[in-house]
Amino acid sequence: MTSALEKPVLSEVEFIAGFHAIGEERYHHKHPFHLLMHEGQLTRGQLQAWALNRYFYQSRIPIKDAAILARSEDPAFRRSWRKRILDHDGDGSKPGGLEKWLKLVEATGLSREQALGGDGILPATRFAVQAYVELVSRRSHLEAVASSLTELFSHKLIALRLDRMRQHYPWLASGLDYFTSRLTQAPEDAEFALAWVVNHAHKREEQNKAHAALRAKCDILWAQLDALYFAYVNPGWPPPGAFRPAKDTR
Amino acid sequence: MTSALEKPVLSEVEFIAGFHAIGEERYHHKHPFHLLMHEGQLTRGQLQAWALNRYFYQSRIPIKDAAILARSEDPAFRRSWRKRILDHDGDGSKPGGLEKWLKLVEATGLSREQALGGDGILPATRFAVQAYVELVSRRSHLEAVASSLTELFSHKLIALRLDRMRQHYPWLASGLDYFTSRLTQAPEDAEFALAWVVNHAHKREEQNKAHAALRAKCDILWAQLDALYFAYVNPGWPPPGAFRPAKDTR
Repeated sequence: MTSALEKPVLSEVEFIAGFHAIGEERYHHKHPFHLLMHEGQLTRGQLQAWALNRYFYQSRIPIKDAAILARSEDPAFRRSWRKRILDHDGDGSKPGGLEKWLKLVEATGLSREQALGGDGILPATRFAVQAYVELVSRRSHLEAVASSLTELFSHKLIALRLDRMRQHYPWLASGLDYFTSRLTQAPEDAEFALAWVVNHAHKREEQNKAHAALRAKCDILWAQLDALYFAYVNPGWPPPGAFRPAKDTR
Repeated sequence: MTSALEKPVLSEVEFIAGFHAIGEERYHHKHPFHLLMHEGQLTRGQLQAWALNRYFYQSRIPIKDAAILARSEDPAFRRSWRKRILDHDGDGSKPGGLEKWLKLVEATGLSREQALGGDGILPATRFAVQAYVELVSRRSHLEAVASSLTELFSHKLIALRLDRMRQHYPWLASGLDYFTSRLTQAPEDAEFALAWVVNHAHKREEQNKAHAALRAKCDILWAQLDALYFAYVNPGWPPPGAFRPAKDTR
């Protein structure tokens, strides 16, 4: 193997194209659980399991963003990144992303208390989400910011999801505010993060690490859907102690 | 909910029975991947995936034991716990558990380099194993030690496994030394750890936390097999970048 240090620095265009190639291969828009969701094939119980488990992921987003904030000595970076925490936690009057996700949980028919308590979430969800917080806390600041670049791909996925959810699961309509907000928030966040990563990865080794961080983040998202699929779709084996849907009707 | 503080301290017999009840419900001896293994239903490719992923778990055992060692101010505890690191790392002349697991990897037909490099292991394996190292590093020393009590249940599982592997997968015979060693090592380790936990959990809250730590450890083992089953048995969807068996013949 040739050392990364011997390889030439990628041009900006090549570096950015690398992120998009990773997304095309590894982002969870291709995961079979999402494909079923968007085809209208999921039961209410399966959507409950998804909303419940994903709430744990949502709940750690402001924590991971605060960890990233805590690593920067640059007020301009911190001012920009602070927006993410506001987006998810709200300002105390207008609801933030966490509150909106709780509305989605309630729209599936589960209580917000069940999501807040975290009882019954899959251990695999917990492990993957913890790995995300560890990644942004322990790897370099550059890698932490690069791991957020899944936002580059989320607009397209969320636009499709909104469309298909309205079509296939009209009973979820009161829970879709999270997604409408993300349609504008995610591209703003991705634009800032991508420009920052491009400006701060000067060596090929740094560029490689930034690509690897995005790959790791894609693994974190993908593993959560693998676990949901295994536990609630096929073969349908939630581990001991995990949430079991009360009924599995469409 | 009644607070744990209001509940009476469990007797030694009740406290120990609690660990056994958790094992009966949650230890991975009941996992369908192990059931298939012991029925002779796994292909060589599936056993390769198992040996490869489990090597990552094995590789972190001496690290988690060193983390537990580092938390104790008691030389007697450290002297006893040190044996575990020796068991897995060896003494430089006689092979330890890691070397023996590499022999198992080779017996499946993969190279030791593939296991040592960790390429192709499932992200879910990595997340679960990292969660184990985090647990013993961040929770109380008592919980760290209690999490090792899955060893209470491993003798029976390993004795069965040895028997069934010799019967169903005779081509693995050169790789079974790890298990024969664990038949004597694991009960010694479990006996010490159980006595220590019993002697150091004086309050009901501590007893509850010790039980919860064993539950969490069972989740960590179970999640690894869920991921293997999903990726390599049914539906057989390894995530992007994961190991794919070259051929899936029995």
